[in-house]
Amino acid sequence: MDVREVYARYEPEMRQVDRILREAVASAHPRLTHAAAHLLEAGGKRVRPLLALISSRAGQGPTERVYAAAAALELVHMATLVHDDVIDDADLRRGRPTVRNQYGDRAAMYTGDFLFARAIQLLSRVADVEVHREMSDVMVRICEGEIEQIEDFFNWQQSVRDYLRRVERKTALLIAASCAVGAMVSGAAPEAVRRLRRFGYYTGMAFQVIDDILDIVGDEQELGKPVGGDLRQGNLTLPALVAAQTGAREALRSLVKADVAAEEAEAALQLVRTSPGVSVARRVAERYMAKAMRELDAVALPFVRRDLAAVARFLNQRRF
Amino acid sequence: MDVREVYARYEPEMRQVDRILREAVASAHPRLTHAAAHLLEAGGKRVRPLLALISSRAGQGPTERVYAAAAALELVHMATLVHDDVIDDADLRRGRPTVRNQYGDRAAMYTGDFLFARAIQLLSRVADVEVHREMSDVMVRICEGEIEQIEDFFNWQQSVRDYLRRVERKTALLIAASCAVGAMVSGAAPEAVRRLRRFGYYTGMAFQVIDDILDIVGDEQELGKPVGGDLRQGNLTLPALVAAQTGAREALRSLVKADVAAEEAEAALQLVRTSPGVSVARRVAERYMAKAMRELDAVALPFVRRDLAAVARFLNQRRF
Repeated sequence: MDVREVYARYEPEMRQVDRILREAVASAHPRLTHAAAHLLEAGGKRVRPLLALISSRAGQGPTERVYAAAAALELVHMATLVHDDVIDDADLRRGRPTVRNQYGDRAAMYTGDFLFARAIQLLSRVADVEVHREMSDVMVRICEGEIEQIEDFFNWQQSVRDYLRRVERKTALLIAASCAVGAMVSGAAPEAVRRLRRFGYYTGMAFQVIDDILDIVGDEQELGKPVGGDLRQGNLTLPALVAAQTGAREALRSLVKADVAAEEAEAALQLVRTSPGVSVARRVAERYMAKAMRELDAVALPFVRRDLAAVARFLNQRRF
Repeated sequence: MDVREVYARYEPEMRQVDRILREAVASAHPRLTHAAAHLLEAGGKRVRPLLALISSRAGQGPTERVYAAAAALELVHMATLVHDDVIDDADLRRGRPTVRNQYGDRAAMYTGDFLFARAIQLLSRVADVEVHREMSDVMVRICEGEIEQIEDFFNWQQSVRDYLRRVERKTALLIAASCAVGAMVSGAAPEAVRRLRRFGYYTGMAFQVIDDILDIVGDEQELGKPVGGDLRQGNLTLPALVAAQTGAREALRSLVKADVAAEEAEAALQLVRTSPGVSVARRVAERYMAKAMRELDAVALPFVRRDLAAVARFLNQRRF
């Protein structure tokens, strides 16, 4: 089962989600509409809506309320990207200029706020208290994660556990919520909701670990942004932390600091690449994927199982 | 009726709201908790919770759900203040250093996000779809207003109508929602909800216009921040716009620009002070107050009417 078949199967429903997204980013205000539309057109894989749509099949399947929830999930994701790019001083994402690069940090801050608010507004259409609670809990923890990330910049004392908690908040919780919310809105049984949430959680953990590996060993062209960005800005990911724990800590600490020079960043990148960091991280990602698949085993409907497995594999079979 | 009596009467309920606020700002994360608590202790008058509590008397009166909604209103307010201070490069608010001054723009951005998310989380405790819709609509429009404010900086072509729309979004809508939500959560009749919303709206309009007058002619000590801040940062308020329309436009335009020098700002301030701007703005505020009071006339319960009138007068009888 190729993920393209899954996207093809869900094309009509994904178009409904896109319609809602397009309405949601429209605003009375031209600059805001422009910034948000820019973001929308930059694309991305719309993984969270797709997961919500598939998961809704564990209940009654896609409805207008599922579309609204799916769009809300994508908007929360977009909002966090916009704010993250402000934190990271990022100028490029997916090969395109970021909102902060085009409109400045302040406009980016408000664009993110606007997208958040629109997401909440869509959730009010879903009109389900449980869904509201799930989403607001996730949003609180995402925000906590964002602050933690700032604090952990350049902190070579942090543990792998600190890193994994950041990954959870940055990525896994929203992917878990995508599956859970899709199922909840369509009236799936509580046990199915829990199982799909766990599937999403493990898939999200694997996905982010792999993303962090790609930042060390990926292809600039494919990434759409420079390799080594995490290290340069002091965002210490699993490969780097493992490299530190296996003998390179002092060398890395002296190379990776605020306003690091290009050659030093390159030297640090080489240190991490030649350490066991990447292979350890790859094993960690594989273990999460195995856990995700184990959750799927117990999902009753074969076509839900099959489609979710295809999406999870797609997210995690990236070239490095 | 003095507002102190109103605060005294609602003291037990306000303490319940404060308890929820204190729980809400607590986070797993020390820096976040610290920044949010700093903000909480900076105080403020908790006008929005107070209005929600009084308005709840139009229905069943204060309950745990009303307290949660009242706390959510205050958190949304705090979140917008934190983000506004980033936009305005503000270092002082109510005589205390701002979050951005103490922790930097990025931490301030995330602190605001966190407070927003906590507000949404509290609203999920209220578990009322109508309330959720009211609040999310207001949040969307507040965000739109924030972007407009950036765009209108230093724009001497803007109309009074542009200014009033900013005032609506910056202040009036949330005060209107405070009254409406308090009434809705406690099951007040739809007509009472609408009336209280309009009362809050007009009170909020008057309040912000007066705040803008104080920035021109107020007392630095009482304001807790330097006078003339709006003009210096290019935030053109009603007194300045009226001054421009009554002959001072070219002089003001040449004085008020990005990175304005202290003497130029002082000269611009004098131009506005000696123009009809302040007295026109005062009349506009008075007219809004009269409209607010007219809405109250039709509120059935005398103690609700009396307490709301006291709060509105308190907000709008400020010395200048």
